[in-house]
Amino acid sequence: MQRDEKEAVAAELYRALARSDRKRLDEILHPAFEGRTTEGLPLGLGGTYRGPDAMRREFWGRIARSYDARAEPAEYRHLDDGHLLVTGRYVGEARQGGGKLDAEFLHLLSFAERRITGLVQLTDSARWAAALQTGQTLSALDLRVADGLAQIRLDRPHVRNAFDQTTADDLYEVAQRLAADPDVRAVLITGNGPALTVGGDIAVFADNAGAGLPGKLRRMISPYHEALRLLSRLDAPIVCAAHGAVAGGGLGLLYCADIVLAAEGTKFASGFTAIGLSGDGGNSWFLPRLVGPRRAAEFYLEQRVLDAHEAAEWGLVTRVLPAAELADEALAVARRLAAGPTRAHGEIRRLLRDSWSATLSEQLTAEGDAVARTAATSDASAAVAAFIDKRKPIFQGR
Amino acid sequence: MQRDEKEAVAAELYRALARSDRKRLDEILHPAFEGRTTEGLPLGLGGTYRGPDAMRREFWGRIARSYDARAEPAEYRHLDDGHLLVTGRYVGEARQGGGKLDAEFLHLLSFAERRITGLVQLTDSARWAAALQTGQTLSALDLRVADGLAQIRLDRPHVRNAFDQTTADDLYEVAQRLAADPDVRAVLITGNGPALTVGGDIAVFADNAGAGLPGKLRRMISPYHEALRLLSRLDAPIVCAAHGAVAGGGLGLLYCADIVLAAEGTKFASGFTAIGLSGDGGNSWFLPRLVGPRRAAEFYLEQRVLDAHEAAEWGLVTRVLPAAELADEALAVARRLAAGPTRAHGEIRRLLRDSWSATLSEQLTAEGDAVARTAATSDASAAVAAFIDKRKPIFQGR
Amino acid sequence: MQRDEKEAVAAELYRALARSDRKRLDEILHPAFEGRTTEGLPLGLGGTYRGPDAMRREFWGRIARSYDARAEPAEYRHLDDGHLLVTGRYVGEARQGGGKLDAEFLHLLSFAERRITGLVQLTDSARWAAALQTGQTLSALDLRVADGLAQIRLDRPHVRNAFDQTTADDLYEVAQRLAADPDVRAVLITGNGPALTVGGDIAVFADNAGAGLPGKLRRMISPYHEALRLLSRLDAPIVCAAHGAVAGGGLGLLYCADIVLAAEGTKFASGFTAIGLSGDGGNSWFLPRLVGPRRAAEFYLEQRVLDAHEAAEWGLVTRVLPAAELADEALAVARRLAAGPTRAHGEIRRLLRDSWSATLSEQLTAEGDAVARTAATSDASAAVAAFIDKRKPIFQGR
Repeated sequence: MQRDEKEAVAAELYRALARSDRKRLDEILHPAFEGRTTEGLPLGLGGTYRGPDAMRREFWGRIARSYDARAEPAEYRHLDDGHLLVTGRYVGEARQGGGKLDAEFLHLLSFAERRITGLVQLTDSARWAAALQTGQTLSALDLRVADGLAQIRLDRPHVRNAFDQTTADDLYEVAQRLAADPDVRAVLITGNGPALTVGGDIAVFADNAGAGLPGKLRRMISPYHEALRLLSRLDAPIVCAAHGAVAGGGLGLLYCADIVLAAEGTKFASGFTAIGLSGDGGNSWFLPRLVGPRRAAEFYLEQRVLDAHEAAEWGLVTRVLPAAELADEALAVARRLAAGPTRAHGEIRRLLRDSWSATLSEQLTAEGDAVARTAATSDASAAVAAFIDKRKPIFQGR
Repeated sequence: MQRDEKEAVAAELYRALARSDRKRLDEILHPAFEGRTTEGLPLGLGGTYRGPDAMRREFWGRIARSYDARAEPAEYRHLDDGHLLVTGRYVGEARQGGGKLDAEFLHLLSFAERRITGLVQLTDSARWAAALQTGQTLSALDLRVADGLAQIRLDRPHVRNAFDQTTADDLYEVAQRLAADPDVRAVLITGNGPALTVGGDIAVFADNAGAGLPGKLRRMISPYHEALRLLSRLDAPIVCAAHGAVAGGGLGLLYCADIVLAAEGTKFASGFTAIGLSGDGGNSWFLPRLVGPRRAAEFYLEQRVLDAHEAAEWGLVTRVLPAAELADEALAVARRLAAGPTRAHGEIRRLLRDSWSATLSEQLTAEGDAVARTAATSDASAAVAAFIDKRKPIFQGR
Repeated sequence: MQRDEKEAVAAELYRALARSDRKRLDEILHPAFEGRTTEGLPLGLGGTYRGPDAMRREFWGRIARSYDARAEPAEYRHLDDGHLLVTGRYVGEARQGGGKLDAEFLHLLSFAERRITGLVQLTDSARWAAALQTGQTLSALDLRVADGLAQIRLDRPHVRNAFDQTTADDLYEVAQRLAADPDVRAVLITGNGPALTVGGDIAVFADNAGAGLPGKLRRMISPYHEALRLLSRLDAPIVCAAHGAVAGGGLGLLYCADIVLAAEGTKFASGFTAIGLSGDGGNSWFLPRLVGPRRAAEFYLEQRVLDAHEAAEWGLVTRVLPAAELADEALAVARRLAAGPTRAHGEIRRLLRDSWSATLSEQLTAEGDAVARTAATSDASAAVAAFIDKRKPIFQGR
């Protein structure tokens, strides 16, 4: 390809992105397209995206959900090896809170058959994280972060922490803050009042019965699911304390957690088919993996209600405690994890999550890479030294 | 591409399809080919197929198994946006029962690099379903459909419902009828005589020992597996009542069911390696997911035989009942499900089944889409209203 | 493409392979590339590889790990159908043991868009297997092969069979020998001394603390993981006898086994995060599938230690025995499996392993194919005949 041809295709890329022109993007990007984006980007956006679809949905699409921003190219430079190097700035703002974004970028583009086959992105990722920090005020839940431990408490006790639009938006806001905060080393999720959460607020459904219901549910589920996705991708382990009841989509709070402690007497139920819905909250991804397809079907279709001991036996929760001990013990477990090797915890969470879509060969390779990365941390060096000296290791989380 | 070039390629597509010319199809279809077929087609044929392979195997190949039919293009029209619109008729007949097929079609073709990159199909899907209805007579099993409940009863009690060619063919015929019948809201599978089924009929194997055995088994397993695939894709939930024994490939009847009730004293076994075979019936897909890899290996390699309570503990069956109560209770469960929100049940079945090949992100998106679809059903509207009024909801299955 | 153009591209392929020139290979191979390699190749190398990446990593990359060899093309012939037929020789040697490799090859190449779209390889696979046989001396473990049973015994009792570099190298060597030996019909893994294995040798970590640790771990984990991969792909079933302790990456020995017998009193632990590491040995692939995500998280993050009965209940081991009976019973189980239908065992092992990345449709097809293959074995013919005659079958493993 000629130099001016490459520049024209590149310019067309930025125009198509600014217009969110999916059709044009599909023409510009080669089927074998691969994007590599800046590691440090918040919301887990850094990484490798294979194929135009993955790049569009998983990267640009997710940026568009959290930011109203555009890439403004300033200069094009041609490299000897045929690559085109584009420099410019991302400008715009975070959708929630309105924090300003102004960050330099550098894009290294490769081409084949008059299309773009590769994009390596480097940008000032701290700017992206900072834009998210100017947060909204939280009203449906509390967030406290201290000593590396983030505590999220659902705070609509009068409706047993039923999810409405504000709860979903607030949880998404919190998930974004935690994803952008490298000092968080553990998360504790609890609920104020008689229950952790009874799931979606039926009052919301009733007010929107008929034609309005699908749209209403979509608007509520979208930030909630995005929050679950972000929480499941944190480096920091998550502890969840369940009491009273956990139902419907609210079960997602258990699913994104690593360790779930349940008070004696807690009830667990799906409840979706009672109101003719198929259900949200990641139930259909986690249940078959946690309890097996046989019990997943029973839980959904026969609306089986579990008590705390059954939930532990099934694998929904880690262990059961007397109700009076729940809060203290959950805090103790979360503090213990917050004092652990956060980098290793993050790798383990990622390995366990990605395990399901990997072959054994791929996963063995991923384990080898992760061990090498954690072996290079100061936490590992200090812990090996402590082990030899028969001392208890002190982890700094790095 | 020129207009006449597009028409030539399109005509070549129809010729290649009529000849089942795989090699020619591979030349005509672009590696990035995507097919979108009519939603309402029977046998779960409606949907999106990515890549020439998926289209060939999963769509055209499966059509060819159930229909002897060809697409006859009548007119080509060129659209402004470069697409080619082909109209014509599908003509032929159903392979089983011989019901005639004569259905209009419209194909919207897209092109790139002298090949076809996309095919959007619209056809009169009710005609396709109707062609399957002219069914064969069933001899190895009974089918009764009433009040939204389809009851399948294996009926070769003298050989404990061992599978022979007729049983496999009949089950496939039944699965096709149920897949094409939108009024079926639940399915109950039972067996007449001393056992649900002992699996493949060893007498068949003995008659075909030596060189004939592989072919004989393929002919029998092929419709059986196709039946299991169709049953696992029904919207309607499936209940299975197990008694006496369930063995070998016959375990597939449990696997395609959502709720399995087992009579006290029922035995479960794989038994394949006793006769030097690797086994069928979906055992290798379901066992690792239902009971975990450790127990799956034991069940296959050590030929462990389970009693009903062990089978429940392992997750092969939902629960165990006294033998005398099995028939009534299974019928009651099936009737309860037949009176449920069938659209939500169908979405849940699909979500749970597809869960295994989805990432968490993909599944959360799928859950959001499914909730929006079910929220738009009249069952959901009625159920939300009933919930508010503290009435029991009445579901119509739509 | 012209004939000389094809030859030039082919010659360039062999040059790029000899130089391990990844970039050049990516230019030469078409994105839709598919490689089909000789079935009988050792190390599970025979099969179909879809896409240039799979061919490069899974086939050529794995060859390069075990052999220092190159393909020397001798003659190019053009076929009427456009294919290019290349004949030549592979020459070189096995990396471990130095066994010479000199094997004829025949490559059938297909082309499109000036690139190679297909390579069908035929080579003298017995030569490849023979080159691996000239083995190194084993020092960290024992291998005995007799009557179709291979017994591997870890033999560093003074350090409770902790893994060092030699143990990992030896296990890889053993795995290669077993993968190349068609007479092996079962494998038994045991440990000499007080424990099966405590995992990675912390002394190794201490000697290499700081900057050297990542590289040291990579060198040790790489052959260990390759060994686990090979063992998990053997046709022969694997029995593992666990006693004393099984910890860390050493748990991989349980994971590659089908049947695991554990002595009363055996302890199972991950232990990785105590030294700030994320862990190896396939834990992150097997644990979620064996024990579910909830318990996998607890085992990793809370460093839960299991006793033998808990390990059986969780699904890490098949069953628990009094310590005094472990050796005899494990040997008896292994001998029983060694006297079984090895071809069927191999198909079952493969089906169960590949199950996780297959859809139900794909797996049903794979089961049908495997049944047809096993139905054609003499073991199946003999067993069906024995069944009819009510005799016990005698399996020859073929």
